[in-house]
Amino acid sequence: MTETGSVNLQHFKDTIRKISRYDEALNVLYWDLRTGAPRKGADTRSEVIGTLSADKFKLSTSEELGGLLAALEEPEQFGRLGEIDRRLVQETRKDYDRSVKIPPKLYQEYVVLTSQSESAWEEAKASGDYDGFQPYLDKIIHYTNQFIDLWGAGDTRYDTLLDLYEPGMTTAKLDVVFGGLREKLVPLAAAIAESAHRPDTGFLRQTYDKQAQKSFSLYILEQMGFDFGAGRLDESVHPFATGLSPGDVRITTRYLENDVMSALFGTIHEGGHALYEQNIRPELIGTTLCGGTSMGIHESQSRFWENVIGRSRPFWERYLSELQQRFPGRLDVDAERFYRAINVVEPGLIRIEADELTYNLHIMIRYEIEKMIFNDGVKAADLPAIWNDKYRDYLGIVPANNREGVLQDVHWSGGAFGYFPSYSLGNMYAAQMTVAMEKELPGMWELVGSGELQPLKEWLTGKVYQYGKLRTPSEIIEGISGKPLDSAYLVAYLEKKYKDIYRI
Amino acid sequence: MTETGSVNLQHFKDTIRKISRYDEALNVLYWDLRTGAPRKGADTRSEVIGTLSADKFKLSTSEELGGLLAALEEPEQFGRLGEIDRRLVQETRKDYDRSVKIPPKLYQEYVVLTSQSESAWEEAKASGDYDGFQPYLDKIIHYTNQFIDLWGAGDTRYDTLLDLYEPGMTTAKLDVVFGGLREKLVPLAAAIAESAHRPDTGFLRQTYDKQAQKSFSLYILEQMGFDFGAGRLDESVHPFATGLSPGDVRITTRYLENDVMSALFGTIHEGGHALYEQNIRPELIGTTLCGGTSMGIHESQSRFWENVIGRSRPFWERYLSELQQRFPGRLDVDAERFYRAINVVEPGLIRIEADELTYNLHIMIRYEIEKMIFNDGVKAADLPAIWNDKYRDYLGIVPANNREGVLQDVHWSGGAFGYFPSYSLGNMYAAQMTVAMEKELPGMWELVGSGELQPLKEWLTGKVYQYGKLRTPSEIIEGISGKPLDSAYLVAYLEKKYKDIYRI
Repeated sequence: MTETGSVNLQHFKDTIRKISRYDEALNVLYWDLRTGAPRKGADTRSEVIGTLSADKFKLSTSEELGGLLAALEEPEQFGRLGEIDRRLVQETRKDYDRSVKIPPKLYQEYVVLTSQSESAWEEAKASGDYDGFQPYLDKIIHYTNQFIDLWGAGDTRYDTLLDLYEPGMTTAKLDVVFGGLREKLVPLAAAIAESAHRPDTGFLRQTYDKQAQKSFSLYILEQMGFDFGAGRLDESVHPFATGLSPGDVRITTRYLENDVMSALFGTIHEGGHALYEQNIRPELIGTTLCGGTSMGIHESQSRFWENVIGRSRPFWERYLSELQQRFPGRLDVDAERFYRAINVVEPGLIRIEADELTYNLHIMIRYEIEKMIFNDGVKAADLPAIWNDKYRDYLGIVPANNREGVLQDVHWSGGAFGYFPSYSLGNMYAAQMTVAMEKELPGMWELVGSGELQPLKEWLTGKVYQYGKLRTPSEIIEGISGKPLDSAYLVAYLEKKYKDIYRI
Repeated sequence: MTETGSVNLQHFKDTIRKISRYDEALNVLYWDLRTGAPRKGADTRSEVIGTLSADKFKLSTSEELGGLLAALEEPEQFGRLGEIDRRLVQETRKDYDRSVKIPPKLYQEYVVLTSQSESAWEEAKASGDYDGFQPYLDKIIHYTNQFIDLWGAGDTRYDTLLDLYEPGMTTAKLDVVFGGLREKLVPLAAAIAESAHRPDTGFLRQTYDKQAQKSFSLYILEQMGFDFGAGRLDESVHPFATGLSPGDVRITTRYLENDVMSALFGTIHEGGHALYEQNIRPELIGTTLCGGTSMGIHESQSRFWENVIGRSRPFWERYLSELQQRFPGRLDVDAERFYRAINVVEPGLIRIEADELTYNLHIMIRYEIEKMIFNDGVKAADLPAIWNDKYRDYLGIVPANNREGVLQDVHWSGGAFGYFPSYSLGNMYAAQMTVAMEKELPGMWELVGSGELQPLKEWLTGKVYQYGKLRTPSEIIEGISGKPLDSAYLVAYLEKKYKDIYRI
């Protein structure tokens, strides 16, 4: 590399590193707000976050960074970059263009709007009054449409939003995979509803000591290979994971005294996200590549650990006795009955309470509505009726009010259109990865059954975690499976599991 | 005010507000590091702190800020400023000049040096090897002398350092007050040592459940009027308080299973600091005036609550039964015996383990040594011998090694020369304020004896807390007492208290 080239590269990397440090600071501030910051400090705290975000935005959109990018993209210079630096230039270019295309004034208005809109949503959700929220939602849709115009539409306008969370994902691809899911899962859910072999879940509804729940959650995290020297478990109202750096990955859960599984599955879920972040290659630290490659791949890891492993028969054949020891006399059932109970399927109205099977139907409804908004011009006023119709079609039930209908999720109030599909993509990726793991890791289920979870974590580190954003979602799944994303794996997994449980 | 004047003022205040936001972010990052951040994230975290500190330093030393200051200092503009804005300009000028006089390269070298020096001190303290640490200490002294040269010496060179922590304090004043203290406290300590009436402390040395200790600490904080909506209590190796803003003041303590009083007095001490920070006037938020006016006044509040109140007879006549309830069968003594036990005087070698009386002697030793270093050119090599001689003079005991001698405190390794006097100043201010409070708050000790601590907090809010840095330390103490700082109040307080306890 020429001397100018290597000066540019160093300068570029220093800038990226500085941005990543601002990101860590911001993530600590957010984590702190959500895990117990005193409420009376909230106003000054949001000013602090606003100031640091603005300074970070300035760094990320500076002409200087633009100039460095352009210089490094010159074929002569780009050709001499190593693999990581090339990806870093490409990834930064994508972020840079996205940011500089939005006029600062427009973005500032949007930030204020989403903040007001989230508050309006909170009120509307509490009261059930959709009409009060509707004008905000219309505005958010209006701004999002302006962003799509500025960024440029993909094959469809909605594709531009999908790409924000799942690079390379399109409605064309999603229509195929979701179509495949719908075709099989709707009848499967119907057959389950008619089965006479319903799991008995009554024994789960008792009172469970919080400290004992916490101790078991910590134990299972340790079994999964969560590194407590590089992470911690706290409590928050809504569980979340945040990777400040691979050396500091924080997750939270929420302990419910009357539900022994809620905090545990929350912990395993966030623990899956955490294993991903803790095991990214150290050389990616301080770069924008040091994070999950997409929301779908990230979600595949939370769902692999929570559902594929954590709700499996071998897992509980191994761990049930240890759970029982922590709650003497409370869970006096055998592993089979326990396994069936934690896998009960109950079509319901609320996404976050849904079981592993019907969850995907909740997502498809949101996906179809988001497509209608951005590709067909559907307005906020139309959403409650569309929402209710779709619940009737997919799940055979209709919300009695908007609180348990169109108002249930925070996402749209914050402008996160295009995000929902990630959840089902995660389920699909996880099922597809599992088939490969079963082949490549002989006796995988025997390992789970004997509590040897490290080989699973190591396999996933080798195939997924270490790369961060160094590989695209398609490269990851094709590298593992030899095939692109295919919903047939998830269908096969769910059919096998639930036909067995419900004896269909 | 002219239009230019008000534009300048607004611009100036925006800059100060921005700096204060960076301060809050940095304080959250430090708090987080000390309350449980995963150790493997420490390296990236220190880079984050380094980046934000450097950006804050740039803001604080910008030519733009210098220009705004100069404009606002023009008599015509300054004359039209309100009280708060004038103080803000004066305070900012002081900080600004201090920062810009240090060449950035020198400061950068110093930051690296202190970081290395603190590590070297840790090693030396563990091994007792002073020789390994001595070169670092010499360098730190050398840099500090350069700073004194750049800032300009006061009446003595050491005065420049004192002013960093206690604005307006001088060796001339300190010689007087410390002289007064020494004259009375050395013989008092000697008389106590010869007294036959030693308190029995054996009952304090049992095993005390940590959760029960925590619950009592939280209870006492609440009694003091600590606002849990604007603060929190956590654990850390070394207890500390940090005021992010009056709406978010965090303190920590450390629970020792074999010492029931350690965590409690630590909590009350830090709680005193916290009451100060929580009750600063809201209009000072976002300015550099939003903090304690000096380390001495800050320390007066921790010591007032910990010692004057928390180690008083009325306090334990009220609260002992509640402490006993939390540890059934453990503290089966009457309030008088308990009061005597927690006020035992034992001349020792370690400052942080010292009682309320001999503590001041430990401080005087450090004060005299610091004066010798900066006013008489004493070198690091001479310090162990000087240290040991002074302990013989003041306390009648000599360290057996440097670990319990000159190596015991972290302060010098971090360059914090001039800080130690704050601790005794705090004791003196607290005693002087107490005399005023006893006069102005009729039945003050009856209030304490009946657990009504709010009037005390409110009195202090009116006289001290609300002002932040709006008043100087002298203005604060003279406003309360009508007189400047005088060691006679502390002497009288200690003589009365200990002659009673030891029946001298």
